[in-house]
Order: sequence, then C-alpha cells, then structure tokens
Amino acid sequence: MQALRVVRRLPSSASFASVRRSASAHHSAMSLAPLSSSITSSASRSLSPWHGSETNRAVSSAATSSKSDSNHQEQQGNQRKEGPDYARLLVRGLAIGISGLTAFVAADRVLHPAAPLVVPGPAKSTETSGGKVVVAQEPAARFMAPPLTEDLEHKIAAALRDAAGDPDKLANVDMKLRMEDMVMRAQLAICRAMEDADGQATFKVDRWLRKEGGGGVSCVLTDGAVFEKAGVNVSVVHGILPAAAVREMRSRGKDLPADTSMPFFATGISCVMHPHNPMAPTVHFNYRYFEVTDPRTQQRQGWFGGGCDLTPSYLFEEDAKHFHATYKQVCDKHDPAFYPHFKKWCDDYFNITHRGERRGVGGIFFDDLDDRPRDKLFAFASDCAFAFEEAYLPIIMRRRNLPFTEEQKRWQQLRRGRYVEFNLVHDRGTKFGLATPGARIESILMSLPLTARWEYCHEPAPGSVEEELLAVLRSPKNWV
Amino acid sequence: MQALRVVRRLPSSASFASVRRSASAHHSAMSLAPLSSSITSSASRSLSPWHGSETNRAVSSAATSSKSDSNHQEQQGNQRKEGPDYARLLVRGLAIGISGLTAFVAADRVLHPAAPLVVPGPAKSTETSGGKVVVAQEPAARFMAPPLTEDLEHKIAAALRDAAGDPDKLANVDMKLRMEDMVMRAQLAICRAMEDADGQATFKVDRWLRKEGGGGVSCVLTDGAVFEKAGVNVSVVHGILPAAAVREMRSRGKDLPADTSMPFFATGISCVMHPHNPMAPTVHFNYRYFEVTDPRTQQRQGWFGGGCDLTPSYLFEEDAKHFHATYKQVCDKHDPAFYPHFKKWCDDYFNITHRGERRGVGGIFFDDLDDRPRDKLFAFASDCAFAFEEAYLPIIMRRRNLPFTEEQKRWQQLRRGRYVEFNLVHDRGTKFGLATPGARIESILMSLPLTARWEYCHEPAPGSVEEELLAVLRSPKNWV
Repeated sequence: MQALRVVRRLPSSASFASVRRSASAHHSAMSLAPLSSSITSSASRSLSPWHGSETNRAVSSAATSSKSDSNHQEQQGNQRKEGPDYARLLVRGLAIGISGLTAFVAADRVLHPAAPLVVPGPAKSTETSGGKVVVAQEPAARFMAPPLTEDLEHKIAAALRDAAGDPDKLANVDMKLRMEDMVMRAQLAICRAMEDADGQATFKVDRWLRKEGGGGVSCVLTDGAVFEKAGVNVSVVHGILPAAAVREMRSRGKDLPADTSMPFFATGISCVMHPHNPMAPTVHFNYRYFEVTDPRTQQRQGWFGGGCDLTPSYLFEEDAKHFHATYKQVCDKHDPAFYPHFKKWCDDYFNITHRGERRGVGGIFFDDLDDRPRDKLFAFASDCAFAFEEAYLPIIMRRRNLPFTEEQKRWQQLRRGRYVEFNLVHDRGTKFGLATPGARIESILMSLPLTARWEYCHEPAPGSVEEELLAVLRSPKNWV
Repeated sequence: MQALRVVRRLPSSASFASVRRSASAHHSAMSLAPLSSSITSSASRSLSPWHGSETNRAVSSAATSSKSDSNHQEQQGNQRKEGPDYARLLVRGLAIGISGLTAFVAADRVLHPAAPLVVPGPAKSTETSGGKVVVAQEPAARFMAPPLTEDLEHKIAAALRDAAGDPDKLANVDMKLRMEDMVMRAQLAICRAMEDADGQATFKVDRWLRKEGGGGVSCVLTDGAVFEKAGVNVSVVHGILPAAAVREMRSRGKDLPADTSMPFFATGISCVMHPHNPMAPTVHFNYRYFEVTDPRTQQRQGWFGGGCDLTPSYLFEEDAKHFHATYKQVCDKHDPAFYPHFKKWCDDYFNITHRGERRGVGGIFFDDLDDRPRDKLFAFASDCAFAFEEAYLPIIMRRRNLPFTEEQKRWQQLRRGRYVEFNLVHDRGTKFGLATPGARIESILMSLPLTARWEYCHEPAPGSVEEELLAVLRSPKNWV
C-alpha cells in the first residue's frame, strides 16, 4: 500500500475558532474558515510542497509529535499579532487552492508515497492540467481531499444528465460513483462540523492508495479541546473476493455462485468520535455499499449496510432519546418498518457477548439491504449519513464542558476498555479489515480510543449512576 | 459460574515489606510473613468470616475500591503503633489458619457465591473436620488458596507412595493431580516473589468455581510500587468438548475420533506482569495440560503446552539475553532440540500479524507436546514454571527504579496498546476463553494492562531507541 499524506494546515487557535463559530451557522460559510490569519503564520510550510525542494521538510513537519504541534500553535499565536490582514489572506488562500489542485493530480500520477499536500480551503476554480479540466469546481470545498475516482464529479454529472427524467436510468446510474461522491461530501461536512464543535483542533488528512486497488481518505483529529480522538474515514476499494468470502456471503443468504472468487467493489464511510469529557458520549457511524460481479454472467449485485450508535459513559436519557428520535425520523421517511427493525439489530450487533453488555445505548444498524431499488436505498443511506450532525451535535455541545471528577474520568476509561474489547473481538468490519492483506491498519484501528483502562473485577457501587448505565447496557431500552 | 471470593489479608505497608525482604531468601521463611503486626489491625474484619453474622460485611469490604483499600492501609498504619506484640499475633495467626481450613471446606460444599475467606498465612496444622483430615499440612503455606481438588495432597501422596520405585507406575500417576499441585505451588512461589519485588502491594486472591465443572484461583495485584498490574491465574476445569473443538484438534494432528464430543480436563497456570516503569519489561507465561477421554474406548490422551515471553518497551540486550539464556538452560536439561525449536515457535506465535511486529523479544513457546512419557513432559513444564523467578526477577530488580520521561511513558502506553491488540485479536487462549460459555472473563482478561494508548499513525523518530526496538520486533534476533 502506498500512502499519500495530505496535510491540511488549518488554524487551531481558540481566537480563530471563535471567529469560525460565529460564522458557522451555515457550513458553506464555514468552509471559508481556512482563510483566516493563522493559516499564513505557517505559510512557508503550508506552501512549501508546491515548491519542490521544500517537500521533505514539510513531510517531517507533518510527522511531528503533539508536543511540537503545540509549539507550532504557540508560534502561530505569536505571529498572529503581526499577521497580514484578512483580504490579503483571502487572495493567498485562493492561490494555495489553485496550486493544490495541480499538486494533487501530479501526486496521484507518481504515487509519491508520503508527499505532503495542503488541501486548500475554499478554492473556487476549475483548474486545468495540460489543457484538460482535472477536477470540477471547488474540489476542496466539497471534499477533504480529492476523490479516489478521477473526474468523479464530471462522471456523475454526465450520468445524471443522461438519466434526467428517466427513473429507470436514474436507478442505474453507477452506484459506485454516487456512493463515493456521497461519502466524500459527508466526510467534509462532518469533519467541519466536528472541528467547529471542538473549537481548537483540526483533522489531519491522509489520502492513501491501496496496491490491490482503490484507496481512501482518513481524517483524524487528536487531542482537541473537546475530542480526545476523532476519525472520519472514507474508503473506495476494489479487487477480487476469495471464494471463502463468497461462501460466507452465501451463508448470509446472498444468491451468489458457489466456489468461485468474484470481483468486488466496496465504498464506505466510517466515523468514531471519543470526547474527553466523560459526560459526553462516544459516537460511531458507518455506511457502506458493497457490489460483486458474477464472473460468468457479468451481472452485478449490490447491497447497503450501515448504522450509527451512541456510547455514553454517563447516561443522560435526554441524549439517548434525541439520538434515537433523529434516526427514527430519518428511517420513517423511507419505511416505517425500518426503525424498529434496525434499532433491534443495533442492540443485537453491538453486543459485547463475553460481558453480556451492549457497547452503548444503540441507535440503528442494518446490513445486506437490497430489497428495493438501489437509488431508494442509496437515498436512505445518504439521509442517515447527513443526519449525523443533527443527531450528535446538540449532545456534544451540551456535554462537552460539564464538570467531572477524576473518578468519573476513570469510569469513562474503563468503558473505553470495553469499546476496545468490542472492536477487536467482535466487530465484523474490524476483524475483516485486520485479516485483509494490504489493508490500511491505521485507518481500521483509528476507531480505538486514545486511552483505555482495564481494572480487575471492577464493579460500580450499588445504586450508583454507573450501575444504572450497566443495567441499561445489559437490558436495552426503547427510547422513543 | 459461581465465584468464591478469597481475601488474603496480607499487610502492604513498606515497613513490613522490608522485614519480609530481609527474611525472604527462602520462600519458606517468607511464608511466615502474614503473622506481622498489621494483619491483626484489621483482625475484626479478617476474622469475621469465621463468625457467621459478619460474613456479609466482609464481602463488601472485599469489594471496596482501591481508594478504600488505601484508607484501609492508612488505618493499618495508625493501628500498628498500638498493635499487639509479635508472639500474640503468631497465636492469633494460627487460630485464623485453623478456622480458615474449616471455612474453606464448608464454603466448598455450599458453593456460597461470594463468601470471603481469609487464606491463612503460615498455619502449621493438620486440620480435621468431623474427625476426617481435610487438608494435609500447611495448605496456605503451599498454595495461595485451597486447591480445587479436595484432599489433593493426600491423593498425590498416596499415588506416589504406591508407585514408588516403579517408573511405569510413576509415569501413570494421575497427571491431573500432579499438574494441579504443580501450578498451585508455582502460583504461590511466584506471587510471593513478585510481592517481594513490588515491596508494597499484595495479590488479591479470588477462588472461583465453574458451574460447568472445576474452577480456579486468580491472584491479581493492582497499582503496586513496581507493578501497574500483575496477575497469576490457575484454572482446573473439566467438561465436554464439543465436536467442533475436537475437529479443530484433529486438524492440528491429534489422533482423535471424528464427529464426536469428548470429555476433557484442562489445568493451567498463566501469568502476566505489567510494571509501571517503561524501562521494565512486561512478562507473560503459561503452562497447561490438556486431556481428553475417548468416549468409546475410555482411552485418555494428554498433552502439554506453554511458554514464557518478554515484552520490553525499551530494549536492554542484557535483559533479553539473560531471559533467553535462562530458558535455554532449562530446555537443554530436557532436550537440546527444545530451545531452538521453541524459541522460533515463540517468535512465530506472538506475532501481531496485522502490524508485522512481534509482541516482544520472545522466549519459548510449545504446544501439543506428547512425544515422550508424560512424566518427562511434566518435569519439563514444571522446570519451566519454576524457572520464572530466575528469568525475570533480576530484570525487574534492575529496571524497576530507573528514571524515565513522560515521553517514554507514552511510548510504553502505545506498546501496551499493541499488547491489547495481540491478546484480543490473535491469542488463541484468549479467543477460546472469550468464546467459552461460563468462562470467567475477568480471569481471562486480567492479562490486559491497566492502561493502554492508541495514537493514529504514530512512528518513532528515525534513529531513536524506540525505532531500534521496532526493528527487532519486525525481525526477531537470536539472543543466545
């Protein structure tokens, strides 16, 4: 696997965060954020990748520890006082954007393993390379990094134009492309919203290519003001599914040929957010589209899976109810049978069987969905993905600054230990990923918390709120 | 599963520890330790289980958090000043011991789920219950808690007496009994040695019974002066092995009947020690004997497995060499082919395949050993188990107080994360345990560190000692 490191140099100072928050009612406004004063305080580093000889220096700056990151923030703080004015920065931001597009394309072609790229903020351009339009308008405003499929947006636009007004044709617009576009857009929206909620840290962006086919974009935020660790990962991979994996899918009821390997394609977005504050819950979501092609008939079969679940260390009923109500609303829009079915599926799936505890208070979970036209299922998955902000943001906003004790932090760390147990022992996606040759381990394991704890035979005090949480985890409730 | 909680009320004050260290050249001397002043400072609690109505109070005192444990220590400290003299304590200790034996037996009979029992220290007695000798001499001086097999020592003594001078008979003395006796003795010796190395904390002893058959004794030390977490677990279990498990064993080359379940018996000791100091390595060992009975012929087959491996966060070649040299010496005594074979097996087994890293610098590992008379293999496993102190104690003693930085502690925590990954994703024993109905999860997962850390895409600095360790983990070395 070759990794193409993309470093988004976004400001992380509190003063800038407050500017961003005041302007962030709309995320379109928010995407202008990188043009603030602090980005240029490190302009020489940010711009360096576009000037050949500086590349290596920028690589090592991208690999610095959190300690040097904080140094960097201090430098930013010092330099901000004498920084250039906002209008000048806007122009410079555009320039970075335009250069960035060319660099992406060049980097994509040479597959330079760790070439650092600044993902421009709000670049408005239709950049060309050798006379050919390389990426459609505003790639960096639409995505955290360029999509894996070259000319993705052009291709989708052309297909949608071609199918306009024809439901059958629309249903058959290449789902691989639509899904890639959707998860890339969702990634951007969610990363921006979570940076905004954090108010301090920004996502580090890694765009990586997989030798076996495809690649992904991993965005990880570490040690922010609100989030201990947050990751939003997109992957767009294809290859050959071994006969054993096909057999496993047949055993799950898929009508697939026996004893043969099959070409497959999989696109997904997955996200885990672990806040510092023990009163603020961890959240996870994942939406994926999987497609196989019968090697004999060339017929394709595709299905959707996904879900979103909440893992509090301290239970606020209000939060659990809001979270479930949000997804119930999304589900009901598509099929009233969805929510009850997927809510139960979620409780059943996120089950730490060896503990007899659910991971959290659930949400929704679904898999192998292929019982209706693909564009309907796509619309459902897409609505779920974009409902995340509505579901989680109010919760994190009201819990992120609550006071807590050291004992409560310790309980959160013990619950994080359970999270690790579920992910490493039971989660199908993680197990599949870890067993897949060429898989990008850091992207798979970014779901793990920054820190976790195991105490022998720990039991919460009888009658405590910790024990109340355990009771709910042992016997899931209905929240709406 | 029903748990029978056994609370060993040993003193944990530094002053007592130093007394113990000065007297601990022989473990027989060390086993007199509990008769110090501090044990009686909580005499009313320690004695209470033997006086019916106090039982519940003692249960809850056993379930107190580490916070109240430290309160307890403070109380001990206060009371020690006005405590009774040593001679009086000796007498009281004997009384506790004698009462203890009776209580054990009673508790064993009723399977009271969490009745706390004080394991007496150095009781010298042949205690009787209803006129029958219940446990042979010095049960608590020989074991951390009473063995699972009633009258174990009498039974072994009788069998060995019967076989005296006859090699064939000796080889056929019930291996289940000999193994149980060996692992219980090893548990005591190692717990005492590690308490001594720690100098502050003592092992909490849980004796538990498994509804499906058998039980175990788990000894865990948490947050000591030297050890963050250390556990030594003995289990003696039996039951019916499902046909699927028998098939798995056939696939490993065992000559077993196809498509049938089989009665099995398994005895083992496993141990993990995680020190605080990042310069001091984690260590693990495990020795086990597994026996199945063909339901048609009643023929029994048994085999041994085990090993010991060292996991440093910072590599001291001297430590790795000493550790390997110790086990090479033990192996060579039994078969010169053992060490090279088992050293490689260890490197192959403790492989975090998804990282391409070994867990540590290895040691020895073996499984399915049944190629020579059982008593020879038993002697080998036994020698390995009792070599642990020689292998690890000098290392922990010279590393436990080395100075270290916060950055080095963070690196240790990242390596602890890898330890968790190996144990939860790859370790056969853990996976088997977590999938076994009725398994005692806390005993299985006591191998996990107290705390662990995952940072996205962490890479040690080029040329650093951390990178040097990784190079060895990626490409194991020969140490002797």
